[in-house]
Amino acid sequence: MAVAYDPQNIFARILRGDIPAHKIFEDDVALAIMDIMPRAEGHVLVIPKAPARGLLDVDAEILARLIKRVQHIARAAKEAFQADGLTLQQFNESAGGQVIFHLHFHILPRWDGVALRPPGSMADNEKLKEQAEKIRAVLGDFKD
Amino acid sequence: MAVAYDPQNIFARILRGDIPAHKIFEDDVALAIMDIMPRAEGHVLVIPKAPARGLLDVDAEILARLIKRVQHIARAAKEAFQADGLTLQQFNESAGGQVIFHLHFHILPRWDGVALRPPGSMADNEKLKEQAEKIRAVLGDFKD
Repeated sequence: MAVAYDPQNIFARILRGDIPAHKIFEDDVALAIMDIMPRAEGHVLVIPKAPARGLLDVDAEILARLIKRVQHIARAAKEAFQADGLTLQQFNESAGGQVIFHLHFHILPRWDGVALRPPGSMADNEKLKEQAEKIRAVLGDFKD
Repeated sequence: MAVAYDPQNIFARILRGDIPAHKIFEDDVALAIMDIMPRAEGHVLVIPKAPARGLLDVDAEILARLIKRVQHIARAAKEAFQADGLTLQQFNESAGGQVIFHLHFHILPRWDGVALRPPGSMADNEKLKEQAEKIRAVLGDFKD
């Protein structure tokens, strides 16, 4: 059953500039921002600019362009925080773990022996700002 | 630190036909198979045919083509099992949750109130065969 896209979701409002975010990357296809409830240090979200609820309804060409940006940003996040690994997650509908109904990929830098934090704790704003700067500092130009 | 691709990993051996698998989809880019240690009913893995250890080293064009196939198969998996949602996961290096070192996307159909199963339990072979058939039955042609 298809569910309509809600243009009042938080990511749509961030895309419109109604709500601030710690931006890491932006082009015509995607925006990457720090997750304000990080489950790992350097937890980044990559969202398409085009409205899409999730993996199943997004235009396939946009998805293809989006995942290349996810890769580019994931490399930088891993480098910036000298992570040992990286977990990619993408949730669809409440049953699938989705909370905000605009397609987003979670990029989670990981370290040996360090579990993901439980969800739901707000991060310190200054710390997120520093982390965004750290990723941007190693993020090279993206080429499609 | 880049780690070399090991051509003896299980998915490479499945791709070479040395080990059997319950196949759902195959073309020049990707192979989709049932996970033999499913964390949800209908747990599917989508892997590229080209050797790649994970998200960070895979060729960007192959990744773009791969994710379109992930979307196509995810739609079918959700439909086949009448799932309420879907979780997509992709693990990189041991710290990131990776066990087999050939890039793979986990497609996990999800239902309201049903948690993911703990990892590590082998599924019944007949059941996996039935589940693969169920997904193939609703999987339409893929168009790039």
